[in-house]
Amino acid sequence: MTPIMDKADAAALIVAARIRKQLSWADIAAELDAPKVWCVAALLGQHPLTAEQAQKVCTFLDLDDAVRESLQLQPARGIDPALQSDPTIYRFQEALAVYGPALKELIHEEFGDGIMSAINFNIDVRRRPDPDGDRVVVTFDGKFLDYRW
Amino acid sequence: MTPIMDKADAAALIVAARIRKQLSWADIAAELDAPKVWCVAALLGQHPLTAEQAQKVCTFLDLDDAVRESLQLQPARGIDPALQSDPTIYRFQEALAVYGPALKELIHEEFGDGIMSAINFNIDVRRRPDPDGDRVVVTFDGKFLDYRW
Amino acid sequence: MTPIMDKADAAALIVAARIRKQLSWADIAAELDAPKVWCVAALLGQHPLTAEQAQKVCTFLDLDDAVRESLQLQPARGIDPALQSDPTIYRFQEALAVYGPALKELIHEEFGDGIMSAINFNIDVRRRPDPDGDRVVVTFDGKFLDYRW
Amino acid sequence: MTPIMDKADAAALIVAARIRKQLSWADIAAELDAPKVWCVAALLGQHPLTAEQAQKVCTFLDLDDAVRESLQLQPARGIDPALQSDPTIYRFQEALAVYGPALKELIHEEFGDGIMSAINFNIDVRRRPDPDGDRVVVTFDGKFLDYRW
Amino acid sequence: MTPIMDKADAAALIVAARIRKQLSWADIAAELDAPKVWCVAALLGQHPLTAEQAQKVCTFLDLDDAVRESLQLQPARGIDPALQSDPTIYRFQEALAVYGPALKELIHEEFGDGIMSAINFNIDVRRRPDPDGDRVVVTFDGKFLDYRW
Amino acid sequence: MTPIMDKADAAALIVAARIRKQLSWADIAAELDAPKVWCVAALLGQHPLTAEQAQKVCTFLDLDDAVRESLQLQPARGIDPALQSDPTIYRFQEALAVYGPALKELIHEEFGDGIMSAINFNIDVRRRPDPDGDRVVVTFDGKFLDYRW
Amino acid sequence: MTPIMDKADAAALIVAARIRKQLSWADIAAELDAPKVWCVAALLGQHPLTAEQAQKVCTFLDLDDAVRESLQLQPARGIDPALQSDPTIYRFQEALAVYGPALKELIHEEFGDGIMSAINFNIDVRRRPDPDGDRVVVTFDGKFLDYRW
Amino acid sequence: MTPIMDKADAAALIVAARIRKQLSWADIAAELDAPKVWCVAALLGQHPLTAEQAQKVCTFLDLDDAVRESLQLQPARGIDPALQSDPTIYRFQEALAVYGPALKELIHEEFGDGIMSAINFNIDVRRRPDPDGDRVVVTFDGKFLDYRW
Amino acid sequence: MTPIMDKADAAALIVAARIRKQLSWADIAAELDAPKVWCVAALLGQHPLTAEQAQKVCTFLDLDDAVRESLQLQPARGIDPALQSDPTIYRFQEALAVYGPALKELIHEEFGDGIMSAINFNIDVRRRPDPDGDRVVVTFDGKFLDYRW
Amino acid sequence: MTPIMDKADAAALIVAARIRKQLSWADIAAELDAPKVWCVAALLGQHPLTAEQAQKVCTFLDLDDAVRESLQLQPARGIDPALQSDPTIYRFQEALAVYGPALKELIHEEFGDGIMSAINFNIDVRRRPDPDGDRVVVTFDGKFLDYRW
Repeated sequence: MTPIMDKADAAALIVAARIRKQLSWADIAAELDAPKVWCVAALLGQHPLTAEQAQKVCTFLDLDDAVRESLQLQPARGIDPALQSDPTIYRFQEALAVYGPALKELIHEEFGDGIMSAINFNIDVRRRPDPDGDRVVVTFDGKFLDYRW
Repeated sequence: MTPIMDKADAAALIVAARIRKQLSWADIAAELDAPKVWCVAALLGQHPLTAEQAQKVCTFLDLDDAVRESLQLQPARGIDPALQSDPTIYRFQEALAVYGPALKELIHEEFGDGIMSAINFNIDVRRRPDPDGDRVVVTFDGKFLDYRW
Repeated sequence: MTPIMDKADAAALIVAARIRKQLSWADIAAELDAPKVWCVAALLGQHPLTAEQAQKVCTFLDLDDAVRESLQLQPARGIDPALQSDPTIYRFQEALAVYGPALKELIHEEFGDGIMSAINFNIDVRRRPDPDGDRVVVTFDGKFLDYRW
Repeated sequence: MTPIMDKADAAALIVAARIRKQLSWADIAAELDAPKVWCVAALLGQHPLTAEQAQKVCTFLDLDDAVRESLQLQPARGIDPALQSDPTIYRFQEALAVYGPALKELIHEEFGDGIMSAINFNIDVRRRPDPDGDRVVVTFDGKFLDYRW
Repeated sequence: MTPIMDKADAAALIVAARIRKQLSWADIAAELDAPKVWCVAALLGQHPLTAEQAQKVCTFLDLDDAVRESLQLQPARGIDPALQSDPTIYRFQEALAVYGPALKELIHEEFGDGIMSAINFNIDVRRRPDPDGDRVVVTFDGKFLDYRW
Repeated sequence: MTPIMDKADAAALIVAARIRKQLSWADIAAELDAPKVWCVAALLGQHPLTAEQAQKVCTFLDLDDAVRESLQLQPARGIDPALQSDPTIYRFQEALAVYGPALKELIHEEFGDGIMSAINFNIDVRRRPDPDGDRVVVTFDGKFLDYRW
Repeated sequence: MTPIMDKADAAALIVAARIRKQLSWADIAAELDAPKVWCVAALLGQHPLTAEQAQKVCTFLDLDDAVRESLQLQPARGIDPALQSDPTIYRFQEALAVYGPALKELIHEEFGDGIMSAINFNIDVRRRPDPDGDRVVVTFDGKFLDYRW
Repeated sequence: MTPIMDKADAAALIVAARIRKQLSWADIAAELDAPKVWCVAALLGQHPLTAEQAQKVCTFLDLDDAVRESLQLQPARGIDPALQSDPTIYRFQEALAVYGPALKELIHEEFGDGIMSAINFNIDVRRRPDPDGDRVVVTFDGKFLDYRW
Repeated sequence: MTPIMDKADAAALIVAARIRKQLSWADIAAELDAPKVWCVAALLGQHPLTAEQAQKVCTFLDLDDAVRESLQLQPARGIDPALQSDPTIYRFQEALAVYGPALKELIHEEFGDGIMSAINFNIDVRRRPDPDGDRVVVTFDGKFLDYRW
Repeated sequence: MTPIMDKADAAALIVAARIRKQLSWADIAAELDAPKVWCVAALLGQHPLTAEQAQKVCTFLDLDDAVRESLQLQPARGIDPALQSDPTIYRFQEALAVYGPALKELIHEEFGDGIMSAINFNIDVRRRPDPDGDRVVVTFDGKFLDYRW
């Protein structure tokens, strides 16, 4: 008996295959017929794939059964703390530091006491052309949950 | 000579006036003719107001000159660490923990090596009706900046 | 204009009134016709009260309008870090350290990939008589939310 | 002489065997005739098994003597800090942050000065059907211990 | 209504009275007819006093009703983090760092899987004369609690 | 040239040999003619053994020269931080949080300004039978050192 | 006897006077005939002023003797941790995270084993016009100190 | 399929080759026709190289394809925390602690509310001869970005 | 009854009196006939003074009885964490980071297993003239204590 | 190409050779004709050796070329955090906590505003015989550097 391959190791193999085969994440998402952010997050280890999805990815990228098995594993979600200060990710943290309390006020004003779910939730990233320089537009979209005893 | 009123104290007085006068943040933003998230963030201490904006807010809310002066002060930006674990704010952190590395991958794929600016940046929050329960939709919109030596 | 009384200060006055009037939390919860844990948490500052509830509590405990106003404020939720190591609270943390990963496994086995909501959620504490020493029984009861894109 | 297999390594092999043999934790708990949460926690490394229990598990899952030996080892209990922010586990932390001080107040009111034991203690998780969505119900049940000099 | 005096403030007044009246902690413990360590810990804020004990202390030390009331309050137990590195306290931490794992091994060997209770527990400190320099002898004495599902 | 075996690795081999040979720590301490807590702490890596002691232990447990050499190494003392929250060890920390400041007061009252040495120090753990449940009794015994310029 | 005014309080009064008198930092530096960065750092509390400089600043800004006395005090240098994440300051931290190890390599290559002094040191900030947007140019200039036994 | 070589491992091989071939960083930067600080930072793993640059470096240093592939990978930027307290790097941190708030004031005075970009940014280090001991001069040069909604 | 003045407040008054009376620490140490470092440390709150010493200092500096009383109080020793990064203090930390393990090796080589006492200990600081720039010479002098069971 | 041996690995081999050849650090320092503390610190990885010194050490201790190469590498200086709480090292930290602010006051009084260099610096440890028990005497000796703009 051997342990199931760690999801971080599976992700490293997926990244290697993607680069060596000169595929984009968009290509892989298209193959899986899945939303792009979900797909990348899942392949990096944040969501389990179904058996069928795992098979498809591994066939597409020529990866073996150990990867296929790992991708179906229920993940322990979270971020490598070292990544929190990567500049591309940190700017989101900084935006939340500056605007987080304002979002809280406006969510309570609009919806009452509660939260935006991060579970019944999706997220999208897209490019918006702009003559002053194109823009990154990221949309968080989660169900409102009210505190309900 | 007395020190300029701390922006946190000014914010507390604005919050008190808003509640006692039964005004919404939307009412105040309308009075200032400013975007809602910017306006709430600024009044909570994250952006300086112009002299004219500060005057308008203080007149609208019957607040005195000490508040007016404080609102124009250049802020030291950031979040009270105790607020980071407030559930309404924490869900955004959790979403970034789960999806942050995927956003990084997709930004690099779409734009090349760089970041979404958190300075040349705006953010909006709105309600999206949904038969399964209305949704909170938050949009981050920042200029892409490429690493440019 | 004065700031609204901090919820921690309001809680300190409620605790003082409760002790000096020799009332139990159960008495106050009965007066409010509210579940006990919800009621204590709310009066300690973790939930907003309606205007009517706030009025009722302040009348019952002879507290003034500043407390009444504070109790209706939307809270910033969280715990004083110093309380985390209080032995009565720490034992819950320790139980989660020992059994948390097992709960995660069993929730995934029974419900699939998702979480127990801490928002659509209630909690109860009761005494269970036992000849070997009575027992504290605490029940967490939250809606299951599945990861749903 | 070789060191005894680390309990984390034994747990990884148990997880792998469970998945490959398509067994549920409930199947394993039934085989051991042990409560479910106890059983999962023990197999993940939080409780020692008796020689007989360890033998039974290893036979059931086709695991070798190194696992059997490891499972009987006295554990050093605790949680991998990275797991504390997994959303499924974090919601329990959040519930304790919001309700912990209230639990403390009510335990003292009902029992006097003391704690709920986390040692003379058991815990159960079950599904409660609900038309608005089924619920996760977790029960902590520990002996009350009073401060007794 | 005023809040109940904080236990730290009550402790500061007790310390001041003790010094100005040139009383020892032993004198106060004798007056209360209580064990010395318990008594000092309680007066520093770690245990509640009965109404009778609180009255006795305040009469003995000429302290007023606010102190008397505070001493009866249920405490939130714990240590000021700044005190953890005071050399007199730190040496106990260091001894636990060096000998803690050995104590764990020997408790498990002698009693089986479990802990020494810190609740059903007492502690004593005394001087043991020694020609090479007198010694501080501190005895921890707690009920053994076995892990019992 | 190979590095000297790490004391943690030597400890893991000693633990394995002890369990497989069904020896108690008491048996090993007797073989070494050493106090029990000292002996376990030393074998876990907190004290150096003499050449003779190291030889005796390795002969008794059938361990090889690499272990013998490692046991004589001067240690870097301290505790694995993960062990600090093991419940059996944590209860000592909790007792120090509750009683540490009281011990400090009483040491100063009895001995003057100074500390209990953790170097010229010994510690013992024993079982005290008690009809209400046997008790763990741990005695810290260290030379008093006064601040002496 | 009253304590000397805290340098943070003196800084707050200087900031208030500067704003109300509509003076720039450059005006104050010119009045003191001192480099701009040194001057602002000193007035914010990071360097002591001479008696003459302190007098000049207080006359210029109409501040009283308590401020004058405080400005001459030897400072305890350092930064308010909350400021470390202010975006304007954080970008310098980020630049050091990305380029710090490279600076270390190049300092060692050019000068040998040693450091740039932060004591025998000055720093300047200026604007460099650029058609693509003006640039902030900050120059660190410190004496090289070699490790010299 | 094998994972792509970690950028830290690639950096270690580049450092080894540079030393064994007795090349300076300046030699390598010249070969790449790139600024020195950018070049060292990139080879230590903070910037991706183009395929051509990666090829050139590996040919120059006799390194194999695994290194070449790794150098082109998009990095996760940041610093090993252990390096933050290396004296050569720490002095920059200390200078920012002492002068950071002053830089913030002067940037706001000169440019208005905003930041120096760390992305549209370059940095240089050079020796300035000085009769009192040569000096390390480091220039940060980043585009000013104003807060622009 | 009022609390005894905090030692930090007493220290602030001593510092103010020393500066306003234009006395050096050396003058005060001479008045007390005490070693300089001990004297400054004690007046900053790290050692208790005798009644006679406290009286002498307060007479010398024209300070009142509240200070005199505070100076005799048994201290809780330790450092304000903000001071740890003051450059004058930090250099000692850095020296210990670089040379601490070497000191440990050499103490063990010279004395055997044990420590330099920080209790039976004194410390001195003096100037050593040097043509290349005078030097700060600090001598730690503590009794060796061997691990003695 | 292989990476250069890590300095920690080289140190482990030096320690092993020193013990197995029954040499003291003093013997090695004599062979190198270097000060003892410098020599031990350098061999533990805190200073680079010259090619000649590295050769001499490796010949003396029969170590191979990989060690010789590693010893000449420019170090990243600092301490393993786990060592900070080793009792022999911690006592120095404790002494700095108690006396650091006093050293700061006296350095400023004697030399003016500045620091003791930790770079142009040496340190010595020696035994001072004393009838009450020999003493460890450690001397820090660093050039005074004044804040000089």
